[in-house]
Amino acid sequence: MPRSIITLTTDFGNGSPYVAQIKGVILAMDPDATVVDLTHGIPPQDIVQAAQILPALVEFFPPWAIHIVVVDPGVGSERRIVFARLGEKQLIAPDNGCLTGLASRQEPFTIIELAESQYWLPKVSQTFHGRDIMAPVAARLGLGLEPSALGPRLERLIEIELPEARILPGKVEGEVVSIDSFGNLVTNITAEALANAPRDESVTIRCDDHETLGIYNTYADQPEMTLIALVGSSGQLEIAIVNDSAKIMLGVRVGEKVVVKW
Amino acid sequence: MPRSIITLTTDFGNGSPYVAQIKGVILAMDPDATVVDLTHGIPPQDIVQAAQILPALVEFFPPWAIHIVVVDPGVGSERRIVFARLGEKQLIAPDNGCLTGLASRQEPFTIIELAESQYWLPKVSQTFHGRDIMAPVAARLGLGLEPSALGPRLERLIEIELPEARILPGKVEGEVVSIDSFGNLVTNITAEALANAPRDESVTIRCDDHETLGIYNTYADQPEMTLIALVGSSGQLEIAIVNDSAKIMLGVRVGEKVVVKW
Amino acid sequence: MPRSIITLTTDFGNGSPYVAQIKGVILAMDPDATVVDLTHGIPPQDIVQAAQILPALVEFFPPWAIHIVVVDPGVGSERRIVFARLGEKQLIAPDNGCLTGLASRQEPFTIIELAESQYWLPKVSQTFHGRDIMAPVAARLGLGLEPSALGPRLERLIEIELPEARILPGKVEGEVVSIDSFGNLVTNITAEALANAPRDESVTIRCDDHETLGIYNTYADQPEMTLIALVGSSGQLEIAIVNDSAKIMLGVRVGEKVVVKW
Repeated sequence: MPRSIITLTTDFGNGSPYVAQIKGVILAMDPDATVVDLTHGIPPQDIVQAAQILPALVEFFPPWAIHIVVVDPGVGSERRIVFARLGEKQLIAPDNGCLTGLASRQEPFTIIELAESQYWLPKVSQTFHGRDIMAPVAARLGLGLEPSALGPRLERLIEIELPEARILPGKVEGEVVSIDSFGNLVTNITAEALANAPRDESVTIRCDDHETLGIYNTYADQPEMTLIALVGSSGQLEIAIVNDSAKIMLGVRVGEKVVVKW
Repeated sequence: MPRSIITLTTDFGNGSPYVAQIKGVILAMDPDATVVDLTHGIPPQDIVQAAQILPALVEFFPPWAIHIVVVDPGVGSERRIVFARLGEKQLIAPDNGCLTGLASRQEPFTIIELAESQYWLPKVSQTFHGRDIMAPVAARLGLGLEPSALGPRLERLIEIELPEARILPGKVEGEVVSIDSFGNLVTNITAEALANAPRDESVTIRCDDHETLGIYNTYADQPEMTLIALVGSSGQLEIAIVNDSAKIMLGVRVGEKVVVKW
Repeated sequence: MPRSIITLTTDFGNGSPYVAQIKGVILAMDPDATVVDLTHGIPPQDIVQAAQILPALVEFFPPWAIHIVVVDPGVGSERRIVFARLGEKQLIAPDNGCLTGLASRQEPFTIIELAESQYWLPKVSQTFHGRDIMAPVAARLGLGLEPSALGPRLERLIEIELPEARILPGKVEGEVVSIDSFGNLVTNITAEALANAPRDESVTIRCDDHETLGIYNTYADQPEMTLIALVGSSGQLEIAIVNDSAKIMLGVRVGEKVVVKW
């Protein structure tokens, strides 16, 4: 069995004592675990953003990795905590919709409610289940515990509504869902949604009142400072300015509508 | 023997070459070590903040972990560097008061001055003992070196004055000592200090000119946007706004007085 | 063979999904690898800053570590990706000048173009070669693949012009090349460049319109709030204010000229 890989996605911010405590719990139980920070920069309690970014965060990890997601505004309420096997990924998260982005893409899935408290820390606080329940359960799974031991199976996850691209005749309508460190505008329009779009300059891509023609393969296909549309490394349409920041140059934010037309 | 765990708490900032160099020194000596970033976000040379946050950072790590603390405004002066076993924790730090928060809570303790230079890097700079002395000593301890080999025993650590809660008849006075990523105000008033406070709405919690009644168990005990007081996951009284930021809504900073009265 | 150490230096920002994907690729291939974040804070596409900071980032790592550098504005163009052994360091990077700081210091060197696509991910995007080419190649090298299998040898790396200190009679002219978390101004004037400077107050160090006398050994050599010059822990002249921020107090930026005169 390879060393266990446990990843963390939270809204705690870098350097938070909450992150340190989760790592301490995991390493005390499984000193051989590799604990990987995916991001601690989810905006506080922003379930939608967690749901949207998770597919990209976990995509390239091997199937035995266990992904902990702590974006948990309902901690201490009746919301459940679940183990979920979604396609090739294993996650532990509050059942609040934060897995929607993955669940809507991945089949088959197994959902188990974390109910068996013998796998948790002996003392469970009412405000930090990431540390007291999710972390020890992840460590035990990494050490070989069967997920079925954790509690009863559930039929489904709670899902939230995520902005999805609309595919219309000769047109796809979507929006900017994230902006990377380069200022590239990443949309929710996938390569599949663009399957019928011609690969030439008869395609118009419009965002706010900015417009560009053609969907390219890479930034280097156009000269510096040119507005360009391309399908990025995660299979989503991006709007970029070659070697500059589309975010700054266009003044565009997450949520801005994007229309591809041909 | 489990793989060694060496944690880092510094004021260098994320991505600093100083952090990279410490990791390089440790991994060159012990490639199997797990090096864990606790935080690099201590404000520059802020010994008080390091002392206050350390107990929460190290709390859940196993006793064999070695915690390096590099908040060292006196580097190059006569200040000592010490190995300290404080209760169940092992630390390496400059003897400048940054261990006060732990030392005042943990017994028994062993303090050893780092004096035996054969365990340091061959060339020691005058401005970066975290890399040249603390990192190689931590690596050697992780590999099995006895702390007693490091130098002479000391009787005590240098301690600094930390703001402590005052327990009075029918009243506890403390202050905000940190603010987390959610904007929750964490105070230095512990659950123990509140042992005599009644568990109902006859308790008043006051911070600046804001007031709330009752000490709750979790955020979900009150509706959204309500000011709430509760004992948080580290056993300290917190003032929060349910699903919003008390920091922003109340305009309160670290150091603000908090009074609990009944 | 020790566990492989693979480090990451990028311009992606902390918490970027791009960083998560690189780590996923490496750990899927080599679950025992230790992946170390050096920095993700290189300004977007800033090859010059990457070149200047890399020597300090990698300096203390053991020779078997593999350092991935993803600052790659030319991704998708004809620019090459290389494996480079530069003195005691092994790196994988785009051949765009980002290794100049190391290459100009280290001998001997071996440069190999990454051309053998059987060592890459099966599907290579046109916009993210850090994930699709560099990460899997680093993992395979860590597992024992010979660099010579990766592709043809090259004679030289592309080099860029870096600001270098000018050594003149009785004078060295350089500039501020980075500023650390303490606000200390780190220059490109090395201890070697100052070999002929006397070790007393007959030396004048000038930066913008600020001036200080003498080159000291450590911050503690002068009282608090004093402007001081010293050779820092990486062997470069620094201008600091003892226990305060020279950056803020002097209002100086990267690129400001520094003159040492005697």
